[in-house]
Amino acid sequence: MAATFTQPHAHGRLFSTSPLPKPTKNLRSPFTVRMSLQETGPSIAVVGVTGAVGQEFLSVLSDRDFPYRSIKMLASKRSAGKQMTFEDRNYTVEELTADSFDGVDIALFSAGGSISKQFGPAAVEKGAIVVDNSSAFRMVDGVPLVIPEVNPHAMQGIKVGMGKGALIANPNCSTIICLMAATPLHQRAKVLRMVVSTYQAASGAGAAAMEELELQTREVLEGKPPTCNIFSQQYAFNLFSHNAPVLPNGYNEEEMKLVKETRKIWSDLDVKITATCIRVPVMRAHAESVNLQFEKPLDEDTAREILKNAPGVVVIDDRASNHFPTPLEVSNKDDVAVGRIRQDLSQEGNHGLDIFVCGDQIRKGAALNAVQIAELLL
Amino acid sequence: MAATFTQPHAHGRLFSTSPLPKPTKNLRSPFTVRMSLQETGPSIAVVGVTGAVGQEFLSVLSDRDFPYRSIKMLASKRSAGKQMTFEDRNYTVEELTADSFDGVDIALFSAGGSISKQFGPAAVEKGAIVVDNSSAFRMVDGVPLVIPEVNPHAMQGIKVGMGKGALIANPNCSTIICLMAATPLHQRAKVLRMVVSTYQAASGAGAAAMEELELQTREVLEGKPPTCNIFSQQYAFNLFSHNAPVLPNGYNEEEMKLVKETRKIWSDLDVKITATCIRVPVMRAHAESVNLQFEKPLDEDTAREILKNAPGVVVIDDRASNHFPTPLEVSNKDDVAVGRIRQDLSQEGNHGLDIFVCGDQIRKGAALNAVQIAELLL
Repeated sequence: MAATFTQPHAHGRLFSTSPLPKPTKNLRSPFTVRMSLQETGPSIAVVGVTGAVGQEFLSVLSDRDFPYRSIKMLASKRSAGKQMTFEDRNYTVEELTADSFDGVDIALFSAGGSISKQFGPAAVEKGAIVVDNSSAFRMVDGVPLVIPEVNPHAMQGIKVGMGKGALIANPNCSTIICLMAATPLHQRAKVLRMVVSTYQAASGAGAAAMEELELQTREVLEGKPPTCNIFSQQYAFNLFSHNAPVLPNGYNEEEMKLVKETRKIWSDLDVKITATCIRVPVMRAHAESVNLQFEKPLDEDTAREILKNAPGVVVIDDRASNHFPTPLEVSNKDDVAVGRIRQDLSQEGNHGLDIFVCGDQIRKGAALNAVQIAELLL
Repeated sequence: MAATFTQPHAHGRLFSTSPLPKPTKNLRSPFTVRMSLQETGPSIAVVGVTGAVGQEFLSVLSDRDFPYRSIKMLASKRSAGKQMTFEDRNYTVEELTADSFDGVDIALFSAGGSISKQFGPAAVEKGAIVVDNSSAFRMVDGVPLVIPEVNPHAMQGIKVGMGKGALIANPNCSTIICLMAATPLHQRAKVLRMVVSTYQAASGAGAAAMEELELQTREVLEGKPPTCNIFSQQYAFNLFSHNAPVLPNGYNEEEMKLVKETRKIWSDLDVKITATCIRVPVMRAHAESVNLQFEKPLDEDTAREILKNAPGVVVIDDRASNHFPTPLEVSNKDDVAVGRIRQDLSQEGNHGLDIFVCGDQIRKGAALNAVQIAELLL
C-alpha cells in the first residue's frame, strides 16, 4: 500500500514549461554517462520541438538514453533559426517542410492534427516511421494505436530498417492514463462498462495554456480581471467542461476519443464507455475517476495485486493516512499512479470496482508513450 | 438552452469569506425595504456565526427578508465579545452555552458535529427547533433530513409555535447539489443507479481552508513551499481525494454521506449509488459529474425540459458555444446549475443520462438550504 515516488511534494516544479524555445538543459543526472549518441542509432526528427510535448520528447529521449545517430529539431517558420542545446550539442531549429524527412528513420510528431495531416504522409513516403501524438490518424484503419504496456502487438513487424515508412498513432492522454490502470484489470476480468470522469490539467491545451493559468491566477489574486486568450473563460480557481468541440450526441471530442480509442486499443468494439471530461486548474497531470463493471468477479485485493504488478503503474492506496494519487505527486514522473481501489457498492457480486488514476499528461500522456513506441521500433 | 445568471464572470469575489469575525454588512440593495424585523417573527439563534456558513446564514436571512423578532449571535468562547453589525443593528457575539437557547424559536447550527451533539438536544429541550448543518443527526431515525425543493413533506407538522422543540438536519453539501438536479429526473423515471464523481471546493472545509488555498497559491507562485495547516498536502494547483476519513469499505465518509443521505431523502433504500469525492482548488462551489441509470426510458430533451422547470435549478447547456455550468458562475448564487445533459452512450434504450451539476457549497449546499427549511417552519 506504500507509495514509491520519491518526490511527493514537488515544489516549484509546476511552471517548468515555456512556450518559447529556450536552451534545453541536459536533464539527466551528472553521474550517469550518456551512451546514446552513436554511429549505429537511428536518425530522429522531432516535429513541434518548441512546444510542451516537443520539449518533453527531448527530456525523455535523454532520460532513457535513447540511442540516436542524429536528431533534427523541427518547428514552424516562426521558431526556425532559434538556437538550442541538447545533450551538450548545439542545434538550430529548422522550419518543417516536406523535405525535412530525407534520411530520417523515426519522426516524433507533436504539432497538432493539421501539421500531422500535412507532413505525416510525406515523412512516411520518405521512409520515416512517424510516431504521431495528434488525433489525425488514430482512428484510421491500419494505423496502429499503441500503448506499449497494453498493445505492443498492434505494431508488430514495424521496425527501423524494414525499408519503408509507417504511421503509428499515440493515443490521447486521457485514454493512455485510464488504460494503463484499467487494462490489467480488463485482462483478468473483462471490462463490460466504464464510467469515467476526468480532472484534466492545463498542459493538455499546450504550454500557452499553462502560462495562461499561471497568469490568470496572479491576476485574480491581485483583484484584476483574468486574461482569457487560450480559454474563453476564467480558469484560475475554476473548472469547466473540456474545451473540445461538442458533437451532436452531446459528448465533446475529448470524451469520444476515450470511447473510440479504448475500443480500438482493446480490440473490443462492444465495451461500453461513457466519459465526462473536465478541465481543472492543475498544471501538468491528469486525474480520472473510473468506475468499472466486469464480466467476471474481481475483488479489490486481487485488483490491487494485479495493479502492483502492472508495468508502468504504481499503487498509492493508503487508507489509514488518506494518501492516494495526486496530480502533483505524478508530475514529471513516468508511472501512472492508481489508488482509491475499492469494491463498488452499487454493483453486486464483486463485479464492480472504483479506482482513481493520476498520470503526467505531458510525459506518459504524450512524450514518454511516444518514445516507448520508438524504442519498440529498434 | 440559455443561461440566466447575470454575473457569469464574478471577478474578485472569490475571497469574500474570512475566518475572522468582521462586521457583517447589510448585503441587500439600498433600494429594498427590510420588512423582517417585526414583533411577530420568531426569535433566532445563529450558532457558529463567525464561520463561513454562519456568515452566509446572515446574508441569506437578509437577502430573503426572513422575518425575525430577535437574533442571537453565538460562537465559541474564543469569538465571544466581538462586535458585529447586521441589518443596521449592533450585536455582541455571545459564547454558546446550554442556556443560550432560552426563548429561542429557531436555532441555525453550523459549528461542527461535536457542537451540534453537545448543544442541539439542549436547544430542543428549551423548545427551539434546531436546523443543523452538521452530520450529527442526519441519519438518526425520526430526524427529518430535508431539501425543501425535494422532500418538504419529511418535516410535515414541525412548526414554530407548536409548543415543543425539534431537530431537522440539513443534508451534506454534495448531496444537496446532486439531488437538486437528480430528483426531478428520479421523479419521472426512477433512478436505479447513480455514479457520482465530485469536484469539491475549499469552502467545504471551512473559511480557514479557503484562506489556506489562497495563501498556498501565493506561496507556490513565489516559489515558496506551501503552508499546510488545514490539509496535509499541497492544494494549490493540485487536487486530492477528499480529506474525510476512509472507512473499512474503502469509501470515505463524504462519499458514504452521498449514498446514505440520498436513500433517506428519497425514501428509497434500494437505490444504488457509488461516489468518488475529490477536492479541487476552487473556492466556494462544488461540481459533480453524475451518471444516471433509470428504470423507465428518459430522453435527453425531456430531461432538459424537466430540469428547466425544476425549482432552484437553472439549465446551462449551450453546446454550440461550449457554455456549461462552472463553479465560478454559480458562486454566490442560489440556484444549482445543470448542463452537459446527454443520453449515456454506454446504456441502451434511453435508460441512461450523464449530467454535470454545479452549486454554491456555502449557499445552497449549506446556509440557503437551512434558511429555506426555517421558512417552512413559519
